[in-house]
Amino acid sequence: MSEILESVPNYSVGNDEEVIEKIITPFRENEGVNLLDYSADPDHNRLVVTNVGGAEDLFEATLESIGIAIEKIDMNEHSGEHPRMGATDVVPFTPVRGVTMTEAIELAKKLAKEAAERFDLPIYLYEEAATRPERRDLSEIRRGEFEGFPEKIKKQNWKPDFGPERVHPTAGVTAIGARKPLVAFNVNLKTDDLTIAEAVAKKVRHSSGGLRYCKAMGVDLEGKDAVQVSMNMTDYTNTSLQQAFELIRVEAERHGVDILESEIVGLVPSGALIDVAEHYLKLRDFSSDQIIENRLLEE
Amino acid sequence: MSEILESVPNYSVGNDEEVIEKIITPFRENEGVNLLDYSADPDHNRLVVTNVGGAEDLFEATLESIGIAIEKIDMNEHSGEHPRMGATDVVPFTPVRGVTMTEAIELAKKLAKEAAERFDLPIYLYEEAATRPERRDLSEIRRGEFEGFPEKIKKQNWKPDFGPERVHPTAGVTAIGARKPLVAFNVNLKTDDLTIAEAVAKKVRHSSGGLRYCKAMGVDLEGKDAVQVSMNMTDYTNTSLQQAFELIRVEAERHGVDILESEIVGLVPSGALIDVAEHYLKLRDFSSDQIIENRLLEE
Repeated sequence: MSEILESVPNYSVGNDEEVIEKIITPFRENEGVNLLDYSADPDHNRLVVTNVGGAEDLFEATLESIGIAIEKIDMNEHSGEHPRMGATDVVPFTPVRGVTMTEAIELAKKLAKEAAERFDLPIYLYEEAATRPERRDLSEIRRGEFEGFPEKIKKQNWKPDFGPERVHPTAGVTAIGARKPLVAFNVNLKTDDLTIAEAVAKKVRHSSGGLRYCKAMGVDLEGKDAVQVSMNMTDYTNTSLQQAFELIRVEAERHGVDILESEIVGLVPSGALIDVAEHYLKLRDFSSDQIIENRLLEE
Repeated sequence: MSEILESVPNYSVGNDEEVIEKIITPFRENEGVNLLDYSADPDHNRLVVTNVGGAEDLFEATLESIGIAIEKIDMNEHSGEHPRMGATDVVPFTPVRGVTMTEAIELAKKLAKEAAERFDLPIYLYEEAATRPERRDLSEIRRGEFEGFPEKIKKQNWKPDFGPERVHPTAGVTAIGARKPLVAFNVNLKTDDLTIAEAVAKKVRHSSGGLRYCKAMGVDLEGKDAVQVSMNMTDYTNTSLQQAFELIRVEAERHGVDILESEIVGLVPSGALIDVAEHYLKLRDFSSDQIIENRLLEE
């Protein structure tokens, strides 16, 4: 398997084991798809499934699971802490190996078109697959949520990219897109002063003047003598982990505070960490072809 | 393919394209073996072949190639700069994935036994597969080379581990062993003073009081305004690249010299670089299972 994408579809179910099992079955049973992880959060009332596989197999399995979600989930009865707008809320595709972003976008569009037609479901394309700038940001699309969408969808600039111009009565609307791999990277500071984590987060995140592909916020770590700068690195190929780390170090120093430790939550492409090693060792002319495991994957 | 070893057999041929092609053919044609690289150095008159694959397939392909080398190479007509003692000079096996060192040692012993019987060839086990301490070091075994071995092999403590107690008339003797992955790691210093590289190398290498799994020497970089601390990291799981790098930094500073850059020559296991990233980012509770590519290899 040389061409690999990751997909992390989110469904609006978090409590019903039977429905969860049915939704993940197409991924589990498809031989070209590797179901890496799934987690259902009862508070969020949300199921997050992580798969890797080839484009065609991910297309087939995801299409089938969207059909099952439509059949089993009624959004009129759904509530939870996490914002949501559809039974299948969002489906992002990410290139992992031997696949370009253009191919990931094509896959997103193909799935959006087929799912819209087959299930009579309005679908928005987002991030790299977005058809207009204001649809790049998923939270902009989702604003108003399931309850607000019957009004929102009537507006000229919120006409869906595929499917009918009205909300599916029980399944709402779905966003399908393509994005770069996201790395959840947290850095803990040796202080219990949350305002310091917040001040440092403000300096490091893009929205307030920091690094282009970094989202950050300060978080209190209950019961631990530390506070956290919690980050989403949205494009590690352009904003590296070590850039964020070093900037946090310098900003925290200004408050007389050192870095305690860091953590990566969930999955990370090896390239994000190899890049860190290249930086600190000042490696010259290093190629990812030199990594034995990458040669194994080329098979 | 979940259980993978690397093997890097060395043959005493560097000029004869036809013989080289014949020797690598068993690796090229075995479907369970991935021939990653081969390079023949005319000055060294030596062929180095890098393969990865499962134990059984590497066993079969290597056995066949040893037979071809015996048939095609006459050590009585061989000369070259690199020390050597046999047509197939040395065969190291290294665990890469899902394989323990014990299994790599078993593979080395199985191949040694079979090749000795089939080709009437004296074979020494070395490094992790060695049967006595003085045979761990390949250079100790090879001392005296092809020309000196008829005398050496008669000595009680140089009785081969397998095969006859006399040199093969045309193929000499062969060493087969198991070892940890070796990383060729060089650090260049911003000076043209070779004595500084030599002084730093002395501090960092095991033999003169430095790091346990580090061999190092100072090297002049012709035409470049820098000198090199050239290292073989023989067990990066116990002596890390960043330990060597930081020790070099501190030792070079004492001479008023900074590090210019570093390089990794040839292949490196991803773990050696992930370890560097974990160190500098102070990563807590990181598991290699979090690396997407590792999950792909589990398939």
